Amino acid sequence: MRVLLAQINDHLGKEIQVQGWVHRIRELGKISFILLRDVSGMAQLVVAAGSGSEQVAQTASQLTLESVVSVRGMVTENQKAPGGFEVQVAKLEVIARAEPDLPLAVNQDPDKVSLDAILEYRMISLRNPKILSVFRLQSAILKLFAEHMRGEGFTEIKTSKLIGTGTEGGTGLFAVEYFDTKVFLAQSPQFYKQAMVSSGLERVFEIGCAYRAEKHETPRHLNEYVSLDVETAWIQSEQDLMDLEVRILKTIFEGLKRENADVLEIWQATVPSAEEVEKIPRVSHDQAKDTISTIGGKKVFEINPEGERVLCDWALKEHGVEAVFIFGWPRKKRPFYTYPLDVRSTMSFDLLFRGLEVTTGGRRINEYSMLLENIELFGLDPGSLNDYIHIFKYGCPPHGGFAIGLERLTQKILGLANVKEASLFPRDRRRIRP
Amino acid sequence: MRVLLAQINDHLGKEIQVQGWVHRIRELGKISFILLRDVSGMAQLVVAAGSGSEQVAQTASQLTLESVVSVRGMVTENQKAPGGFEVQVAKLEVIARAEPDLPLAVNQDPDKVSLDAILEYRMISLRNPKILSVFRLQSAILKLFAEHMRGEGFTEIKTSKLIGTGTEGGTGLFAVEYFDTKVFLAQSPQFYKQAMVSSGLERVFEIGCAYRAEKHETPRHLNEYVSLDVETAWIQSEQDLMDLEVRILKTIFEGLKRENADVLEIWQATVPSAEEVEKIPRVSHDQAKDTISTIGGKKVFEINPEGERVLCDWALKEHGVEAVFIFGWPRKKRPFYTYPLDVRSTMSFDLLFRGLEVTTGGRRINEYSMLLENIELFGLDPGSLNDYIHIFKYGCPPHGGFAIGLERLTQKILGLANVKEASLFPRDRRRIRP
Repeated sequence: MRVLLAQINDHLGKEIQVQGWVHRIRELGKISFILLRDVSGMAQLVVAAGSGSEQVAQTASQLTLESVVSVRGMVTENQKAPGGFEVQVAKLEVIARAEPDLPLAVNQDPDKVSLDAILEYRMISLRNPKILSVFRLQSAILKLFAEHMRGEGFTEIKTSKLIGTGTEGGTGLFAVEYFDTKVFLAQSPQFYKQAMVSSGLERVFEIGCAYRAEKHETPRHLNEYVSLDVETAWIQSEQDLMDLEVRILKTIFEGLKRENADVLEIWQATVPSAEEVEKIPRVSHDQAKDTISTIGGKKVFEINPEGERVLCDWALKEHGVEAVFIFGWPRKKRPFYTYPLDVRSTMSFDLLFRGLEVTTGGRRINEYSMLLENIELFGLDPGSLNDYIHIFKYGCPPHGGFAIGLERLTQKILGLANVKEASLFPRDRRRIRP
Repeated sequence: MRVLLAQINDHLGKEIQVQGWVHRIRELGKISFILLRDVSGMAQLVVAAGSGSEQVAQTASQLTLESVVSVRGMVTENQKAPGGFEVQVAKLEVIARAEPDLPLAVNQDPDKVSLDAILEYRMISLRNPKILSVFRLQSAILKLFAEHMRGEGFTEIKTSKLIGTGTEGGTGLFAVEYFDTKVFLAQSPQFYKQAMVSSGLERVFEIGCAYRAEKHETPRHLNEYVSLDVETAWIQSEQDLMDLEVRILKTIFEGLKRENADVLEIWQATVPSAEEVEKIPRVSHDQAKDTISTIGGKKVFEINPEGERVLCDWALKEHGVEAVFIFGWPRKKRPFYTYPLDVRSTMSFDLLFRGLEVTTGGRRINEYSMLLENIELFGLDPGSLNDYIHIFKYGCPPHGGFAIGLERLTQKILGLANVKEASLFPRDRRRIRP
């Protein structure tokens, strides 16, 4: 029965079996210290010429880094070993030998390797425990998000990513050759989650891929990302949605502190406390621009990435949390389906977290005639939106929702320099592999 | 405070607020009976001329089916009302009026409508409670699957669906115009889940879209589907994988009985008990062909869809469960990465459930030299598989996995005639909308 490396201290004085990857090898005279790595962590193996069989010493002398081995040996205490315990190797079997020409050293500090090299050799770089830990945390985010939504009575949906036209008018879409015709990869499940609210599920969430054919080359853009989508009926305004997102973020942050403290420590990261999340300020789009203008000493007319950072700094200083909700976005900056508040602004919001937009959402138009007016106002073709229009032509309750970018949230929680570090196999304009 | 329709019996004699869609209207002299529908179920509203205000009667007389309304009224007992209780309407507000030209009656038995009409007007047909219930059950499957995998120490991953080449040689792929180049939609996360096992996560699962550009027009094929993917290290053979799938299916079936008994009842469906799942027979590919040959009275050389049904009938009769594992598939019927058992067969398996293949899996080749040999044997270009080969060149433990088709599993649990009924917005050769 295999023992995980993180648990060898429970087996002091006993012979156990461990299995994993050879992370590091250090020779000290006639003794080899092998640092073994498995899913749970690492532990030191000791091969002393004479203590084990000659064959063990022979096998150990030919070991290569990253080879997969199965080991039997006695657990002993050693203050100098990582974790305070080590395994005296009695039997050593190479399950899968690694070639010695590793394109990238797995056991080095990833901060010393370029992101390009890390992504180029992704199959290997993911073995680095610090890099891999990003995705242990991401798995927990997925779990905590889904659990929270189900806890509030939301139903999980899976909708098609192949669509006839885009939700926002057709720009920024990747075309797919679909038999004898052409379709597009969905930018978001927007129309479908609205359809499912209106189907009678009332509250839905979806975890799925979203695609943006934008030529951005920035540390905050991906052409393929995972969107945590939420849509709920019976809201009054975007304030209800911000309340919902506050509850979700509290669940995620508290959960990560509980379940992924080790990952937070690896990255020297902290997450806001429940009290801090409650205190995230909510400012209107106008107030946000005024705040940026006042701090910067010159009037701004747009909230650009620099302005987003200024606002988060302001929120940290004034409210003790590095995040801010901006509501009441101008109509011209939001899609046609956004519910208007007045002639100028909409019932919409963004959440900025640590200087980056991680959520966009809002109340949607649910009134048939208002929707038709807005489609005309935006110069869109109602014919191409016929299926969508049916949702509202035949009775749809007031509703709204938002989407959280999984990779951006991961990036900002751990303080990663580039959002690509938070995607297992990121796609950008130039990168389509591995 | 809104009361859900399934809970009005807790409020007998009190005035409550309910909200939902107008499902049915029946006039009986001066009394209108309105069947209201919300996320929780249905309840009867009573509008009696004289009992409410004149305005209520006026509004009620102009109601259209599917309009969204908000109602205040007293809960009374009535043996004849659905559920035994009803609401005497004191206030009636139309929140969103439905146009009277519904393209499809929501309140009819869906068995009486063609699948083409149901899919053509999907935005409306999903409002039918029986149709919608399919997706309440599907949401539960997603939850139960993820919970089970996490409970066994699996990490959830999200991998790219945009790939340079196919896992199985490039046929059956949809091409995507990706900036100045061409990529393909992934048929499965096969390579990536293997990479993540080898990264050190050891046990991973993924819930994601998969694409098959096949021209099938059958009741069991979709061109886009949701794949429940599993991959785990340290297995000996495909028998370990069948053991794992048995555990997963027990969790899902038991969970559905507990949480979705209402949906099973609507569809007059049952799921196998834990004991029955334990009893699913495991037959080799050769035995399976022999069994089909014996039953049919003529020798078969392939297991075709008819043979799959014969085998499931046999399993029900002989083992009390309408499912069968077939292991040891021939090498020529499995992809190049399948671990060979001998010169003819592989460590692979399928699960047939109620006459349909719902799972394919197997042990994968983890040995570098064996993989290179098989790539050559299959006539594939090692250069195009370079990233994949790296996984094995640098130490990969024995591993394997499988994928369960979410829509097929849903179809077979509920006894749906066509797998498209188990997809919210199915895509086939002709259908790319809504």
